[in-house]
Amino acid sequence: MYNIALIGGDGIGPEVVEQAMKVIDATGVKTSSTSYNLGASRYIRTKEVLPDSVLDELRTFDAILLGAVGPAIGSKEVPSGTLERGLLLKLRFELDLYINLRPFVTPPSGANPAFETVDFVVIRENTEGTYAGEGGFLRKGTPNEVATQGSVNTRFGVERAIRFAFELANSRPAKNLTLVHKTNVLTFSGDLWQRTFDAVALEFLGVSTSYNHVDAACIYMVESPSRYDVIVTDNLFGDILTDLAGAISGGIGHAASANLNPARTGPSLFEPVHGAAHDIVGTGKANPIAAIRSGALMLDFLGESQGANKIFSVLSDFAPESGATTSQIGDAIAERVSNAN
Amino acid sequence: MYNIALIGGDGIGPEVVEQAMKVIDATGVKTSSTSYNLGASRYIRTKEVLPDSVLDELRTFDAILLGAVGPAIGSKEVPSGTLERGLLLKLRFELDLYINLRPFVTPPSGANPAFETVDFVVIRENTEGTYAGEGGFLRKGTPNEVATQGSVNTRFGVERAIRFAFELANSRPAKNLTLVHKTNVLTFSGDLWQRTFDAVALEFLGVSTSYNHVDAACIYMVESPSRYDVIVTDNLFGDILTDLAGAISGGIGHAASANLNPARTGPSLFEPVHGAAHDIVGTGKANPIAAIRSGALMLDFLGESQGANKIFSVLSDFAPESGATTSQIGDAIAERVSNAN
Ligand SMILES: CC(C)[C@H](C(=O)O)[C@@H](O)C(=O)O
Ligand SMILES: CC(C)[C@H](C(=O)O)[C@@H](O)C(=O)O
Repeated sequence: MYNIALIGGDGIGPEVVEQAMKVIDATGVKTSSTSYNLGASRYIRTKEVLPDSVLDELRTFDAILLGAVGPAIGSKEVPSGTLERGLLLKLRFELDLYINLRPFVTPPSGANPAFETVDFVVIRENTEGTYAGEGGFLRKGTPNEVATQGSVNTRFGVERAIRFAFELANSRPAKNLTLVHKTNVLTFSGDLWQRTFDAVALEFLGVSTSYNHVDAACIYMVESPSRYDVIVTDNLFGDILTDLAGAISGGIGHAASANLNPARTGPSLFEPVHGAAHDIVGTGKANPIAAIRSGALMLDFLGESQGANKIFSVLSDFAPESGATTSQIGDAIAERVSNAN
Repeated sequence: MYNIALIGGDGIGPEVVEQAMKVIDATGVKTSSTSYNLGASRYIRTKEVLPDSVLDELRTFDAILLGAVGPAIGSKEVPSGTLERGLLLKLRFELDLYINLRPFVTPPSGANPAFETVDFVVIRENTEGTYAGEGGFLRKGTPNEVATQGSVNTRFGVERAIRFAFELANSRPAKNLTLVHKTNVLTFSGDLWQRTFDAVALEFLGVSTSYNHVDAACIYMVESPSRYDVIVTDNLFGDILTDLAGAISGGIGHAASANLNPARTGPSLFEPVHGAAHDIVGTGKANPIAAIRSGALMLDFLGESQGANKIFSVLSDFAPESGATTSQIGDAIAERVSNAN
């Protein structure tokens, strides 16, 4: 029995989380869930983003499943960055969710024939880089203003991300790992990443490695993404590359993500990459597949690989009937998953 | 009569620069050119990248046309970053080439039908941000190493890039300018960019504006790039976005770029975005179109808009015959350009 904290969030978030839990139930894995109301609607009502007491409660769970947070597009009620930094990034930092794992698998339907079929995973360092928030202003608001924004990279943080990526690559058939950075320009952070990558590689001689500059990697994502097996990169490049990877592999509506604390000093967090899509709330048009896949990543990380694999295997040849609603898609997947029992 | 410094560079660089000059000649604009041997081959022979005396000579020209620099892929003779920082970036900084202008126009042939037809320009700030080289190491080589990499942004530098972009947008039919940044995470640099953008916008009330986070912009580049007219962004995001923009608009072989000093305190530099492609040197397979378009950008910036427009207009409905060689393509374009006289 796993204790799961559910943060449905805003817009279609609660709808897709509901389907993910339905599918998890269908695997036979037992969970007990508690819902937390966090996100734009709570902020608008109470001006609270993530009260310390809630954060402390969240620490006690086995895992956290999150739908999507964010105000409706164009809404001015939540200043830009409030939920990102106060909730999503705060959870990543406070819970030391140092791995952001995002698998990209071309779905059986809805794949854009313009792009190669892909099956790769991006491992994004999730707790440092420019996300550390380092920097400041000098002479703010004057014509002589300087704004600095630092990227802070530690051997500790870089190495644990790279090691995780090598272990993952080593467990996959292709056993290939690509480091993406911009070492020709970012001579300090890039150098640390490159040296750490080369050092850890010596422990994984069965994994073939390559290196791409981030700009070249964006071209490859469009022109020949099937070259990738596992990619490891820093926080900001990972943010950019994973949205692009979503776009070339069935759309962001299919992209799942896991924010992992592999040291298991607290719960990990699982969330679809897509946003709150307020415009389709209640219409049944929300695609729950990214949330369901995120749920499978959660089961997998909890050690329930059998349950997780049932979901992955159903998703690998599931194409929703045209016009199927959010809950009909959830029902159809849940049914196939329970038949796989 | 314009004095042009030609830096053919490595690989196919000299071949494509030759075609660009052929087409410029065909416009009737008179130039006198001097070739400089810089790039990987010079470095390998002499260990020199950009001697000060050469830099000083380059300062005296009206413009610089560059082919491509870089060693063959896999060559270990030139340490990564040597030519980038010692030559390309050094020229951008020393000559204060503060605008990197890259137009993307879907070519009449070779367009990938998967992508919308586009006609937009990316204005990339070209002299600051993470390219400033700020940062360093602490406890280098130890398990407690910290590597920092700073992005330095000044109101002066940001404003001149943004103002240039507004002026450009204002001169185009669609009159639309999109700021791309990551303001929700990069709270210092992003804030300066956003405030400066908002302030300059007040001077250009005829230009409609929007804002995209860089990760979302990558999705839009793939899914709906025709939304863009002019984009303005920082140095690193510009590097990433322009390679991606090349990939969705006919391939990097078509992408031209101008490194401009609009204050005209020295020459500006024009170069195709593609690399040296050593593997096809001498085969006639190099596509000179990006270099030819870069030459047209050069004429335009020199004030020879009539000559430039002849080239742009020929390119706008030119599709090379299949199997045409580098110089045949150059000849065919030059012929049409002179017939446009
Ligand atoms: C919401 C935002 C802060 C976040 C990020 O930049 O990491 C998002 O884009 C993501 O990729 O999870
Ligand atoms: C070669 C490299 C330093 C350069 C850059 O990063 O600006 C290139 O990628 C470009 O886009 O012109």
